Amino acid sequence: MHTIDTATKLCAVIGNPVAHSLSPRMHNAAYRAANLNFVYLGFHIENVSAFLNGVRAMPSFRGVSVTIPHKRAVMDHIDVIEPMAQHVGSVNTITNEGGKLIGSTTDGPGALRSLTEAGINLCDRRVLFLGSGGAVRAVAFAVSEMTKASHVTILGRTRENVDELVSDLHNAGCARVSGGSLNDDLRDAIASSDIIVQGTSVGMEPNQHETCVPKDILCPGQVVFDMVYRPHETRLLREAKEAGCTVVHGIDMLLYQAALQFERWTGASCPIEAMREAVSDLTSR
Amino acid sequence: MHTIDTATKLCAVIGNPVAHSLSPRMHNAAYRAANLNFVYLGFHIENVSAFLNGVRAMPSFRGVSVTIPHKRAVMDHIDVIEPMAQHVGSVNTITNEGGKLIGSTTDGPGALRSLTEAGINLCDRRVLFLGSGGAVRAVAFAVSEMTKASHVTILGRTRENVDELVSDLHNAGCARVSGGSLNDDLRDAIASSDIIVQGTSVGMEPNQHETCVPKDILCPGQVVFDMVYRPHETRLLREAKEAGCTVVHGIDMLLYQAALQFERWTGASCPIEAMREAVSDLTSR
Repeated sequence: MHTIDTATKLCAVIGNPVAHSLSPRMHNAAYRAANLNFVYLGFHIENVSAFLNGVRAMPSFRGVSVTIPHKRAVMDHIDVIEPMAQHVGSVNTITNEGGKLIGSTTDGPGALRSLTEAGINLCDRRVLFLGSGGAVRAVAFAVSEMTKASHVTILGRTRENVDELVSDLHNAGCARVSGGSLNDDLRDAIASSDIIVQGTSVGMEPNQHETCVPKDILCPGQVVFDMVYRPHETRLLREAKEAGCTVVHGIDMLLYQAALQFERWTGASCPIEAMREAVSDLTSR
Repeated sequence: MHTIDTATKLCAVIGNPVAHSLSPRMHNAAYRAANLNFVYLGFHIENVSAFLNGVRAMPSFRGVSVTIPHKRAVMDHIDVIEPMAQHVGSVNTITNEGGKLIGSTTDGPGALRSLTEAGINLCDRRVLFLGSGGAVRAVAFAVSEMTKASHVTILGRTRENVDELVSDLHNAGCARVSGGSLNDDLRDAIASSDIIVQGTSVGMEPNQHETCVPKDILCPGQVVFDMVYRPHETRLLREAKEAGCTVVHGIDMLLYQAALQFERWTGASCPIEAMREAVSDLTSR
């Protein structure tokens, strides 16, 4: 690690709780690999406003990763919110530009980059989302605004959440978007999709034996991306592989949302393999 | 260094400027030697109030070292000021006790500990201070409140500063205190003192050839403590050694004021030699 001195810059994740966060491990490993004079901490924060005013007063406090439950609350206390974060209604990244706090989101762009890095091009592809929560919302807006996907479908358990997200995407300029029910419409939606993004908590530890997609409806050549990263390989991904699909792991979204923060705050290219190694206990099984 | 994670505690020095500060080197070396999950940074701060409100919002921000020009200003923005800091009118140490900020000073106690560690007992000794600035003020109050020194004398260049300090010491309960002029009273004051504390900037780089004490008036057995630590051995200390005096170096005050902060914030005993090694470029000549 670079020697810590008065030139060291600080970044941190804020949450409540924050003890479970993997961000300090990932970011500090990347700083070390890139020999950057940065350090990354984790802060359990309740008073977001006082904290952010403090950040403004600390020029060497360069960036803040925002996690639950503050992703929406910080929006009332920062100076600029970039368009995608505004549309999603969620900020996971705050950059301190000389006392001016800029809010953005790398959740969606990080997911897209994990697809790109896996060699997957979304142009003219039909993308299906399973779930309608915050993570799906972030990625769906990124697909809508940053790719030329031909169609976006949202399937959820709660119809009003699905309708709201579909409507918001439509209003933000996403022309070809539709919604449906995870229970009733799954088979048809899968059959007519190229890329399936699983964004519910189904299959997450300790329920790693569950899946929301019956194996027999997956087709060879489809792409299956599961946002769940505990376990590393969910039942869905294992069965998708067996069905001849290309799979993308949830850990990649976690890594690339962090990598995009790293690159924004340091101006350097992110040593992604050092980040991956730092969370290797999650990827080794 | 301990792996940085979400349990890592943060401490920092604040100043304006702060780039010259040796505190990050000293504290981080001590954390490393004691295997403590702490990290210590340096923050260039202008808005003390916003910064301290931010500290209140960060439970893992454990302590703040305060340096020029904020030692007095922070007193308006913290919750409790301990008696000695109140008397001195200066806070160099802020401890975050669950969102409550406690101000104290380790400048004077650090100087006393550097004398104690050198085997010097102040009981019934006559202590002479050369200078009447902030550093002398801090140490004079510590001598007055923490030792049984028999007499305290303050010699300065500006009579009104001397008189104010003498009066403040007297009002705080220091019975045997007197003041005088560095120009007119030096010879007599040295002759009637056991311990001489040099607290002016005379002899500091780049004027290391200067001294405010003619060599021929020092006596064997006297203790000479020079607060100047650049150079490590000032002309005063070199000549005091030659005159048979016991000498105490300014770096020790710097180290022990930091060690007392370390011990307050971590609850652990300070590995002082690790701290000393971290500033060894200042002590090796």
